[in-house]
Amino acid sequence: MGLKEECGVFGVFGCKDAANLCYLGLYALQHRGQESAGIVSLEGKNFYVVKDSGLVSEVFNPKNIAYLKGTEAIGHVRYSTTGSNDKNNIQPLYSKTSHGKYAVAHNGNLTNAFTIYKTLEQEGALFHSTVDSEIILHLLSRAKGATHVERLQSSLKQVEGAYSICILGEKFLIAARDPFGFRPLVLGKKGDGYIVASETCALDLIEATYVREVEPGEIIFIDKDGLQSYKIPVKVTPKFCVFEHIYFARPDSVVYSESVHEVRKAFGRKLAQEHPVDADLVMAIPDSGNSAALGYAEESGIPYEVGMTRNHYVGRTFIQPQQKIRDFFVKVKLNPIRSVLKGKRVIVIDDSIVRGTTSKKRVSAILAAGAKEVHLRISSPPIRNPCHFGIDTPKREKLIASKKTVNEILEYVGGDSLGYLSIKGMLEVIKAYPASSFCTACFDGKYPLKVKDKGKYTFEGRKIKLYAEKTN
Amino acid sequence: MGLKEECGVFGVFGCKDAANLCYLGLYALQHRGQESAGIVSLEGKNFYVVKDSGLVSEVFNPKNIAYLKGTEAIGHVRYSTTGSNDKNNIQPLYSKTSHGKYAVAHNGNLTNAFTIYKTLEQEGALFHSTVDSEIILHLLSRAKGATHVERLQSSLKQVEGAYSICILGEKFLIAARDPFGFRPLVLGKKGDGYIVASETCALDLIEATYVREVEPGEIIFIDKDGLQSYKIPVKVTPKFCVFEHIYFARPDSVVYSESVHEVRKAFGRKLAQEHPVDADLVMAIPDSGNSAALGYAEESGIPYEVGMTRNHYVGRTFIQPQQKIRDFFVKVKLNPIRSVLKGKRVIVIDDSIVRGTTSKKRVSAILAAGAKEVHLRISSPPIRNPCHFGIDTPKREKLIASKKTVNEILEYVGGDSLGYLSIKGMLEVIKAYPASSFCTACFDGKYPLKVKDKGKYTFEGRKIKLYAEKTN
Amino acid sequence: MGLKEECGVFGVFGCKDAANLCYLGLYALQHRGQESAGIVSLEGKNFYVVKDSGLVSEVFNPKNIAYLKGTEAIGHVRYSTTGSNDKNNIQPLYSKTSHGKYAVAHNGNLTNAFTIYKTLEQEGALFHSTVDSEIILHLLSRAKGATHVERLQSSLKQVEGAYSICILGEKFLIAARDPFGFRPLVLGKKGDGYIVASETCALDLIEATYVREVEPGEIIFIDKDGLQSYKIPVKVTPKFCVFEHIYFARPDSVVYSESVHEVRKAFGRKLAQEHPVDADLVMAIPDSGNSAALGYAEESGIPYEVGMTRNHYVGRTFIQPQQKIRDFFVKVKLNPIRSVLKGKRVIVIDDSIVRGTTSKKRVSAILAAGAKEVHLRISSPPIRNPCHFGIDTPKREKLIASKKTVNEILEYVGGDSLGYLSIKGMLEVIKAYPASSFCTACFDGKYPLKVKDKGKYTFEGRKIKLYAEKTN
Amino acid sequence: MGLKEECGVFGVFGCKDAANLCYLGLYALQHRGQESAGIVSLEGKNFYVVKDSGLVSEVFNPKNIAYLKGTEAIGHVRYSTTGSNDKNNIQPLYSKTSHGKYAVAHNGNLTNAFTIYKTLEQEGALFHSTVDSEIILHLLSRAKGATHVERLQSSLKQVEGAYSICILGEKFLIAARDPFGFRPLVLGKKGDGYIVASETCALDLIEATYVREVEPGEIIFIDKDGLQSYKIPVKVTPKFCVFEHIYFARPDSVVYSESVHEVRKAFGRKLAQEHPVDADLVMAIPDSGNSAALGYAEESGIPYEVGMTRNHYVGRTFIQPQQKIRDFFVKVKLNPIRSVLKGKRVIVIDDSIVRGTTSKKRVSAILAAGAKEVHLRISSPPIRNPCHFGIDTPKREKLIASKKTVNEILEYVGGDSLGYLSIKGMLEVIKAYPASSFCTACFDGKYPLKVKDKGKYTFEGRKIKLYAEKTN
Repeated sequence: MGLKEECGVFGVFGCKDAANLCYLGLYALQHRGQESAGIVSLEGKNFYVVKDSGLVSEVFNPKNIAYLKGTEAIGHVRYSTTGSNDKNNIQPLYSKTSHGKYAVAHNGNLTNAFTIYKTLEQEGALFHSTVDSEIILHLLSRAKGATHVERLQSSLKQVEGAYSICILGEKFLIAARDPFGFRPLVLGKKGDGYIVASETCALDLIEATYVREVEPGEIIFIDKDGLQSYKIPVKVTPKFCVFEHIYFARPDSVVYSESVHEVRKAFGRKLAQEHPVDADLVMAIPDSGNSAALGYAEESGIPYEVGMTRNHYVGRTFIQPQQKIRDFFVKVKLNPIRSVLKGKRVIVIDDSIVRGTTSKKRVSAILAAGAKEVHLRISSPPIRNPCHFGIDTPKREKLIASKKTVNEILEYVGGDSLGYLSIKGMLEVIKAYPASSFCTACFDGKYPLKVKDKGKYTFEGRKIKLYAEKTN
Repeated sequence: MGLKEECGVFGVFGCKDAANLCYLGLYALQHRGQESAGIVSLEGKNFYVVKDSGLVSEVFNPKNIAYLKGTEAIGHVRYSTTGSNDKNNIQPLYSKTSHGKYAVAHNGNLTNAFTIYKTLEQEGALFHSTVDSEIILHLLSRAKGATHVERLQSSLKQVEGAYSICILGEKFLIAARDPFGFRPLVLGKKGDGYIVASETCALDLIEATYVREVEPGEIIFIDKDGLQSYKIPVKVTPKFCVFEHIYFARPDSVVYSESVHEVRKAFGRKLAQEHPVDADLVMAIPDSGNSAALGYAEESGIPYEVGMTRNHYVGRTFIQPQQKIRDFFVKVKLNPIRSVLKGKRVIVIDDSIVRGTTSKKRVSAILAAGAKEVHLRISSPPIRNPCHFGIDTPKREKLIASKKTVNEILEYVGGDSLGYLSIKGMLEVIKAYPASSFCTACFDGKYPLKVKDKGKYTFEGRKIKLYAEKTN
Repeated sequence: MGLKEECGVFGVFGCKDAANLCYLGLYALQHRGQESAGIVSLEGKNFYVVKDSGLVSEVFNPKNIAYLKGTEAIGHVRYSTTGSNDKNNIQPLYSKTSHGKYAVAHNGNLTNAFTIYKTLEQEGALFHSTVDSEIILHLLSRAKGATHVERLQSSLKQVEGAYSICILGEKFLIAARDPFGFRPLVLGKKGDGYIVASETCALDLIEATYVREVEPGEIIFIDKDGLQSYKIPVKVTPKFCVFEHIYFARPDSVVYSESVHEVRKAFGRKLAQEHPVDADLVMAIPDSGNSAALGYAEESGIPYEVGMTRNHYVGRTFIQPQQKIRDFFVKVKLNPIRSVLKGKRVIVIDDSIVRGTTSKKRVSAILAAGAKEVHLRISSPPIRNPCHFGIDTPKREKLIASKKTVNEILEYVGGDSLGYLSIKGMLEVIKAYPASSFCTACFDGKYPLKVKDKGKYTFEGRKIKLYAEKTN
Repeated sequence: MGLKEECGVFGVFGCKDAANLCYLGLYALQHRGQESAGIVSLEGKNFYVVKDSGLVSEVFNPKNIAYLKGTEAIGHVRYSTTGSNDKNNIQPLYSKTSHGKYAVAHNGNLTNAFTIYKTLEQEGALFHSTVDSEIILHLLSRAKGATHVERLQSSLKQVEGAYSICILGEKFLIAARDPFGFRPLVLGKKGDGYIVASETCALDLIEATYVREVEPGEIIFIDKDGLQSYKIPVKVTPKFCVFEHIYFARPDSVVYSESVHEVRKAFGRKLAQEHPVDADLVMAIPDSGNSAALGYAEESGIPYEVGMTRNHYVGRTFIQPQQKIRDFFVKVKLNPIRSVLKGKRVIVIDDSIVRGTTSKKRVSAILAAGAKEVHLRISSPPIRNPCHFGIDTPKREKLIASKKTVNEILEYVGGDSLGYLSIKGMLEVIKAYPASSFCTACFDGKYPLKVKDKGKYTFEGRKIKLYAEKTN
């Protein structure tokens, strides 16, 4: 996969050692962002902050978690859309305002960020980071209204796009999801306390109970008096991101009220119906293709096999430019098992094709390991358009399906046949919501809203370059 | 699994950018040792050394790999048997002697290490590390004989136990494997150069061709005139470590001339014959149980399912002592998928049981996720005795099978039934070598040689404690 | 001395490798602040920033200086008034505003900082640091006016207190000094370029020519068309800080148009007239008392001697709590020379007494080394009041002279006699400016302006605590 | 000065928190070596080691000092003669031998090191470092003899050259000084415990009492039964290094039973007699010329002045190659005071001239600051020969006095006159020992012993290059 999720968020209210729960929650959400991680906790009126670039396991340690005192905390893992290693961009963001202190963790992209930014700057606002999420803090600081929720309603009314956010204040936790509900956000309970998370796998790890989704357009306000639900005053039909089911979410999560693994298996079964082929075995590109491959094998009756093995120790890898090693980066991560593939007709299940370069390398590695035929089956439709709602897609012209037919793609990636799951087939097998509740813009270009400031989710123009020593 | 491999070795002779190949080879062998990594390269008469504690991806970077000049290199990854973070113990070890400079990378344990160590010390030898491998350097330095090979023969004649070693000298590479051949060691070719590695997966990554195993008791000497084979002057029957097939080696490796994945699948099939049970699905403890689970499913006709998902970002994890999270460390790594397990009778395939504590947690996590029945099947016989030949086993009394019957173990770990593969069944399905060629001491206590200095592979008594700042 | 200067500033316009000159300038100004250091440079419209806690020699290296491209730069060294290790407080501060990007380096304290801060916060401004200097950026961002200078004039009209500042913009350099001129600021030339610095020693090191002081209340604007001078629209009599002459400035600097070393010698001569005593030798507390001691010896005719030697390698020192070493921290830094002091009547010249604890230790160390009599002479008047204009003084009640007479102080610090320089005597020997041009508030309590927000130069109330790993 | 001392040693026996005292002692001895520092402590039979490159204040912290348990400790500060950053060369060295564990700290150079090294290597010895000091450990390990002292006597009988050493064993402390006594070594007492140190300033800091020098050729053995004195079985006349008085030792130390400051003042007085000149002031190159300048001023009646000021914050400094700053490195460290020098005839006292380049820059800087005449006076004789006994001198051809007359040197360094102290004059003013007790080889070439292995105090030939990440 060449798509990257941009963030995971997590929030805790009213639990002992909140920061530790938050740390564990981020640990479970690590797949949603590996560039940086942060936690802000609250004890009394004091906010405590730990954030840095790196994996959750690199950023946190027993000492700094112990520093994060209190029974409330919010956390964030981030994949950055830019190469920028500006530490100021690491979330949660926080500031003191005349309404008190706030910390914000945000998953998604605001599609009118630049427009608002220009207005705020004209009014003399000084920006500290270069990410769209800071706009929410400025709006909150300037908002009129008697309560935190009223000020948030008036602030969110101004922003457009995707946001699943956690806000920590003195002394409350807010969870809000944009009216389209682009990105997931779930509510849980642990003892008397509340948990908010991007995915349920984070609830599982800390043994919290899954309560329900935070609804599209909902603001949940939690304080010592319990939970209250409010609405963002904007009316639209929900448009969930279907790629959470295809690739992003962990298979053990429940997303949009359905098991991700089961949905993926169903994608595989439907794919077997739509693109059957005679072969000796079905294999997955591990691990993202595992569930769909099982579904395909089940439906087709062709045996499931492990045709590639995954190296569990892939960190930063490099290779000297002089070395000529074909398909090196595929092999580092995934090594084909010759004894399985040799002389076999192989159905290979992958979750998607973005640029096509990775698929090409994988097909070629499987053939080099001795496979007689390779039939590539993709458990999602062809990706033809960029996302503006929180997924980092390459530009349209880099998306192989935006300019090539399926046959031309097959020619490019190699192998004997290629089949994609249809949009209709994909949405049919999802049970919890009707087909109309999903955003399919990346497949068919039907964007649920007009995107004002395309790609302007960071304000690099305002940037003053802070030196950062690179590790290598 | 609670057993730990102690090392992986890799050697390159006559290849451009040897250190880079070595780095890639160690990358592929990372599963054999995660505590430290090192490379020594040779250019002209100069040896270059990079070694440190940490993963291969942490120890090496483009800058220090570039520092490792030359067309020859040996490397090592290590899992240490002690908590000792003494940097002097990181391999390859190296020294100048009156016969020139040597660097040594060693996988295995010398079972008369302490006896030799005491003699050398009486003669005034100063030891720089506390590992048995240093003995080989001292013996080489003191050995008489006209050639490097003669001196090595006379040195290795004195040591007993397990050793698969690479020695880099001016200007040659030696690969040697103890007469029993306890640990694997294979020979490969890349262009005109030679490669030596613990497993074939390291050859695959660098696109070297697998030639053959280094034979038990063989010394391979490679210099500019090519390769020559010599014998260690000791005569015994080979005794390969069967645990390489059960657990240690990567499934995509060929070990003892056979595909590890295929052997594991055969273990699974045999296990289904020996311990059949009626159930709704077969699942593996990922990823070590995957191959055997596929074999079990195939043989039994019961569907294979993904019942647990693996977190790919497990690094150092910790949890505050105050947090009460049941089976936390299992869940961090492996999360059961409720939608798969709920209400099902489940056959769970794991590779082995050491102390039983981990199995107990896994069974309990699977039941907590809703499974109706759990039938645990182990693709190896009960482990009852410690290893002295390169695997870090707990003391005998910690091995659950040393003091409990299978029924008692079932009672301890929980679930509805438990079945182990038999020794006979296990050895039957291995095709490349007869049953007599494998060491089964950990199962039946039949040690191939008398172990003189039990457990004395490190000389901590001689240790002078060097302060090392801990990261946490 | 227990007083601490809070900052040094440096600016370069129109010189090749401006950042390197800036780095050298900060190097020369290191005595004015050792907590953190930073440089912002300008190339085209790009600002480059390097800043960190630590000494100049620790923060900068050839790599990060090379990163700081351009022919303009400003720099800052800082001694922080709080224990706060918040990296956001390290100067120069910078931001983009609707009038373009600005970087600011500030020496001094704004005495109505908190009042302005509250107003800005009410207007929705978000603060990124907790230092008063950030107020200048917010005011500049909100200011109306056609030019940078007009907006600066209207901004500075609102702030009260001490500021010697450098502002770097696109593409100009501004140097400004508050109407009282509390802290020094000088203008220099290097080739066709301009230099601004806290002291002339920084000009010497980079071989710039000293032009003149930036005048109290002056705004100097430098761009490609050269230098223009403006006024801050506030009328007052100058009040220079006399402690620059007594202690802060380097002896090789020219400050307030006079040689610091010569002024200190003159203090010593006057002190000999005011407090003569019969003795065998005159010695200084090195190195801050050196100049005055020479003056005292010259005037009195008593020989000058080296009675204490200074350890040049004093970094962070600590001592285990169990160790009982009398006057340890004095001895680490300054060791008495027994052979010089033994049996002698000694006149000891120090620059000032703050709490009295250090003087007590020094007198006691000199007596312990064998001196027969100790006559302590202080080359400044008794300090009785805190400073609000850029010097970090302890609270009034910690100042020994605020509650004790000279005789009581003598009793406390020990020795045989004690004499302080008089205010009148001190100001008499300064030639370049009349006595009325100096602030003597710390001696006589005559503050030149009403201080509105006493001690509120940092806004810790707004602080959100960012975790910082301590080195020890 | 361009000469560099190579080491300082310190030892403690029978004092609570020995490592902390050792740390403080090394702190006081920091001027003798700034490259690396180390301490080995002893508790029961356990040795604890902390060592690293860097200043004492950088290497040690409360945490690692606390790690160094026990009532015995030895320490070492080192200036390395090579660029080698091999951590294995940092002292104290240590090893276990058949006679128990030893740690060794060594100041000096063994002049037959290479010869012994070759023999040991032939016998199969493996070397761990590349410094001559390791030879002592090997000899001790191989020595025959009933006691530690006997074995040390037979070991030291074999080595030639300079050594002031501390050896820590189980459970004793040995201090030994070579028969010539090239380098200083003193004995002190603290409570019931014993202290050994290179200079008395280290005793002062920890409030130990100075007892006496360790005599040339003496071995002092200290254990729980107290102190015993033995002889190294070699008979020669002492030859103390006179440069300790001229430059190396701290002025507050007593070395060779005399106050260093007083000896330097006497050098200055004698210099005034030998090379009088009419002038307005006498100034020192701070701080190494301070004492002699005071003596010169006293004898000549010409006033002493501070003509240069020292920057206290000189760490690593660099300058971009593009910058043209005359005499930059002099100015960074020492800035002339214009107001003092302008129009004056100046006598400048420096301790020595090595290559002449630094003196040239200083004279030029003083003239540039306005001095009318510069008369350079050197408080030691011309250096014409390299040292082989523990001081790092450049090669003979780099020593300006080896090839130029005094007049030619004057021409090179600039100024109006130049005068060196005579050898005779220098030795006359030393009172505690006769002229014959001092080594004057660097002035007159009379080496006290035949140097066998010139310059071979490190065995870089045996070196295997260990990668070390450079900070810059």
